[in-house]
Amino acid sequence: MEYKILNSDNIAEYIYSIKDLKEYFCDDKLTIEEIGDGNLNFVFIIKGENNKALILKQAVPYLRVLGEDFPLKRERMTYEIRALNEFSKNTPNHIPTIHHASEDMSSVIMEYLDTHIIMRSGLISKIKYPKFSDHISDYLAQNLFKTSSLYLDSVSKRELIDKFNTNSQLCAISEDFLFTFAFMEHPTNDSYADGHPLFEELISNQAFKEQVLNLKYKFMTKNDALLHGDLHTGSIMLNQDETYVIDPEFSFVGPFGFDIGALIGNLTMSYVSHLIQGDREYASWVLNTIDEVLEKFEAKFLALWDAQKSSALITEGFIEENYLNSYKQSFMTDILKDSVGFAGIKITRRMFGAAGVADIRGIEDKDLKDKAMELCLKISTRFVTLHKMIDSRDKIIAIIKDEMK
Amino acid sequence: MEYKILNSDNIAEYIYSIKDLKEYFCDDKLTIEEIGDGNLNFVFIIKGENNKALILKQAVPYLRVLGEDFPLKRERMTYEIRALNEFSKNTPNHIPTIHHASEDMSSVIMEYLDTHIIMRSGLISKIKYPKFSDHISDYLAQNLFKTSSLYLDSVSKRELIDKFNTNSQLCAISEDFLFTFAFMEHPTNDSYADGHPLFEELISNQAFKEQVLNLKYKFMTKNDALLHGDLHTGSIMLNQDETYVIDPEFSFVGPFGFDIGALIGNLTMSYVSHLIQGDREYASWVLNTIDEVLEKFEAKFLALWDAQKSSALITEGFIEENYLNSYKQSFMTDILKDSVGFAGIKITRRMFGAAGVADIRGIEDKDLKDKAMELCLKISTRFVTLHKMIDSRDKIIAIIKDEMK
Repeated sequence: MEYKILNSDNIAEYIYSIKDLKEYFCDDKLTIEEIGDGNLNFVFIIKGENNKALILKQAVPYLRVLGEDFPLKRERMTYEIRALNEFSKNTPNHIPTIHHASEDMSSVIMEYLDTHIIMRSGLISKIKYPKFSDHISDYLAQNLFKTSSLYLDSVSKRELIDKFNTNSQLCAISEDFLFTFAFMEHPTNDSYADGHPLFEELISNQAFKEQVLNLKYKFMTKNDALLHGDLHTGSIMLNQDETYVIDPEFSFVGPFGFDIGALIGNLTMSYVSHLIQGDREYASWVLNTIDEVLEKFEAKFLALWDAQKSSALITEGFIEENYLNSYKQSFMTDILKDSVGFAGIKITRRMFGAAGVADIRGIEDKDLKDKAMELCLKISTRFVTLHKMIDSRDKIIAIIKDEMK
Repeated sequence: MEYKILNSDNIAEYIYSIKDLKEYFCDDKLTIEEIGDGNLNFVFIIKGENNKALILKQAVPYLRVLGEDFPLKRERMTYEIRALNEFSKNTPNHIPTIHHASEDMSSVIMEYLDTHIIMRSGLISKIKYPKFSDHISDYLAQNLFKTSSLYLDSVSKRELIDKFNTNSQLCAISEDFLFTFAFMEHPTNDSYADGHPLFEELISNQAFKEQVLNLKYKFMTKNDALLHGDLHTGSIMLNQDETYVIDPEFSFVGPFGFDIGALIGNLTMSYVSHLIQGDREYASWVLNTIDEVLEKFEAKFLALWDAQKSSALITEGFIEENYLNSYKQSFMTDILKDSVGFAGIKITRRMFGAAGVADIRGIEDKDLKDKAMELCLKISTRFVTLHKMIDSRDKIIAIIKDEMK
């Protein structure tokens, strides 16, 4: 089908041109409602009768929020569709069910999560999610392990890279906005940066920048596994029982620690936000969640690895069990170190860079906001500068609690 | 043009169907001679009149040396052609001039190097090449730097990866034969391994194997730059004045240290061979060449980097000069460590693995051969096991000279 931009007027016709969707909606009269909360894409809720509803997401050849003068290839949806397919295979319970996807139309039609909210909103509203650490550690362990050279054979791994390697435009956006512009004087930065002493301190911190280069280089050249690529708490929808990961348009084959770091970084900002605003009890729940996510991820990843006797990396009988275990342990420590470094990047860039997070920028009292930013930066610059030495969960927690000597 | 296998009977017709070659040979009567020294491919010398001569190399869909029962995709020549094109751009003086190349025909027609010999033969015959270290350090520095994220922008780097990523079959061969089979009991190993005490010692060296996994993982997942992929002294043709690198069919985007390591490893075997056979003076020339290659490579690579103010990695103005220099220095040390590790792999696998080198396996006296193998393995297992700590040329030379305490 030739690409055309969908809107409230032509969506019903499009839906009924697709056999599976025709069957799903049984020729009901459809109600189309645009949801206006995406920066990049158009998103619609399509409702039939008897509570039947699906989400349609379409990429247009520009940035939705800025308009046609800001071109961005619609092919980003190609990678989102491919990533949703890969992740659905490994963790079907944590990916919305895909009803139809078309790379030609840059569109995907999927399950409408009507009882779930965006995690960042839930965290800001102080909702606890007791099953979250279990769910997300499952998502991370399954998807990172099963798209890596520890599970795939050599040819399959290269085929996987081939499907995602040309997501170049979005990878370049990450390289610029996550690893570069937010740490120097740059017109894309938030105006709050202008003359702010914390920003001046940040951009003159050369030891921090040297480690930023190390992490940026890893981001660009280390092909461990298929990543979501933008796993902050705004890319997670959940309720008390279920957790879904959405919006993998930044997906590419990159370093293990990047998705883990994105998540830990965003949870750390939630922790700081609540701590500074006086809710120690909720902050402590968030901190405990960080610890649990890391602990459960490692245990689940290692369990998958122990069950996998051969892969691109390992040939059965090559090495004795105790040496293999020592290799695995040092491999996991390296993932942890990278995760800490990327968490630091993700926090730091949210302070004065182009895109902030509501947890911090939404603090209305300027003094409290500055205090929160100060603590975030203290934690995040340590994460980045020291990441090669942070080899345990305890050290991570100590830095977040500002108890590191 | 549809693929067909070329032979002495149909090559003239093929040559004269190509405009550039018709002009080159001016309708001379052609003499076709097959050179039987390739394992994988068919190679012919095509001679016209007045000393005009070119080389034609064609891949067939099987291993030439073993016959049609050993299938190997002829698309390997696609990657060789692409690599020759890339390397020709950066170091035209060290790549044979390409007269015609066809991915469809899996064939390339290039300059005939009539006054040059394969470097391995030259080394075995104790010929000194005073310009070699200068030439090959140029080749390495130019090609590794200019195909890396230190030179290319982000999108161009991904386009480069895209051209080579699917050289899967040859990458998998390297993973199996270089990093795995040669270090365990395996039917592909040389029969000399059977019951040999040095082989028994090698395959029970678990600390060595743990580091082999580290290096294999880097080989599979670190996308630094476009590599030749098989840069031993049999892939180099030279004389006193010129040095050419040929046969890049194993090319892929991989770790910086791999090509450097391949070369250093093969020169080390030449050093050991001459030392054990009593020619200390020539051995010392080889050792000095190793030192010079490493020294000149680093200086040239850094000079290229200093001249390049922005790239995928570096944005001008991001970091102060002295911190950038410290970053560069530690980057070069990491390349050196990887190079040492890969050199160790390359040496070790030549001892008892499927493919040996004439420098060692060609030693006729069994006692001398065993002595040479013993010294090679002492050096190479140290290279692999200690590579993360070998951070200077001096330490490398000390290990080769067996003076390391």
